[in-house]
Amino acid sequence: MEPSLEIERKFLVTTLPDLAAASRSSLRQGYLTVPEDSVEVRLRQTDGTFILCVKSGEGIVRGEREIEISEAQFQLLWPQTEGRRVEKTRWTGGLDQGLTFELDIFGGALAPLMMVEVEFRSEAEAHQFVAPDWFGRDVSTDRRFGNKSLALSGASFIRELSGG
Amino acid sequence: MEPSLEIERKFLVTTLPDLAAASRSSLRQGYLTVPEDSVEVRLRQTDGTFILCVKSGEGIVRGEREIEISEAQFQLLWPQTEGRRVEKTRWTGGLDQGLTFELDIFGGALAPLMMVEVEFRSEAEAHQFVAPDWFGRDVSTDRRFGNKSLALSGASFIRELSGG
Repeated sequence: MEPSLEIERKFLVTTLPDLAAASRSSLRQGYLTVPEDSVEVRLRQTDGTFILCVKSGEGIVRGEREIEISEAQFQLLWPQTEGRRVEKTRWTGGLDQGLTFELDIFGGALAPLMMVEVEFRSEAEAHQFVAPDWFGRDVSTDRRFGNKSLALSGASFIRELSGG
Repeated sequence: MEPSLEIERKFLVTTLPDLAAASRSSLRQGYLTVPEDSVEVRLRQTDGTFILCVKSGEGIVRGEREIEISEAQFQLLWPQTEGRRVEKTRWTGGLDQGLTFELDIFGGALAPLMMVEVEFRSEAEAHQFVAPDWFGRDVSTDRRFGNKSLALSGASFIRELSGG
């Protein structure tokens, strides 16, 4: 697999924009394993697609292996991810200059977190980007807002963040 | 799930009996996880049936959850179980007094181990059982011959056993 370089910026959101022209999808993922385990087994749902993903980080056989499972199978295994989940509604829409935003509204233990990501074609474009009014604090370099970090330790952090 | 009590005895086998009347199946299982992990994820094949099994031993949500997967999916994940496998051909046949034997001929890292199990309807029957000539040493109480133990540490042990 070629390493793919993503140039993106990520912002908190406190006020929702007009989403009439945006498209909606449901995403959730949860970990069957804990970070200390020898292997990572993750469940992921994107709308009607259900994936079980096994990722190993050491030994002779390494890599990421995914199988598509049925919704019923997903539902059977999902309880096992309790406490290690990210559930969100993603709105994808357009910005000026042909840019696309992905606005994630988190549910479950991570509510009321909202975050928006924009991907750029170059570093220059990323630096020049003027964020719309509804974009909040830039958290691009804050690792606590990564997917895995949110799944595993996001809940208490989000409560702090929202002053709870 | 009701706990089910099995009364069985297990013997090593060095000489194969006549298997003309016995039925054959292929079994293999392998662990994606190691024993120290927080969860046990196991793959299991019985002839044309492929299962992924997740077993958790602690926390609020515990138990064993199984999903049936396709052969292609099984093959994709199987390399991940390297070093933690049991592969065997099982011959099931009849003995005197309506008893059934299950003779396991191990392959892979556990060859040339052969083992036979007989299940009984009562403890008395188990004690009275007179083993056929082709049954070798009784290993009923030897935990090293359990499935999990064989998968995780059987290979070196079997080499010792067979004088290798």
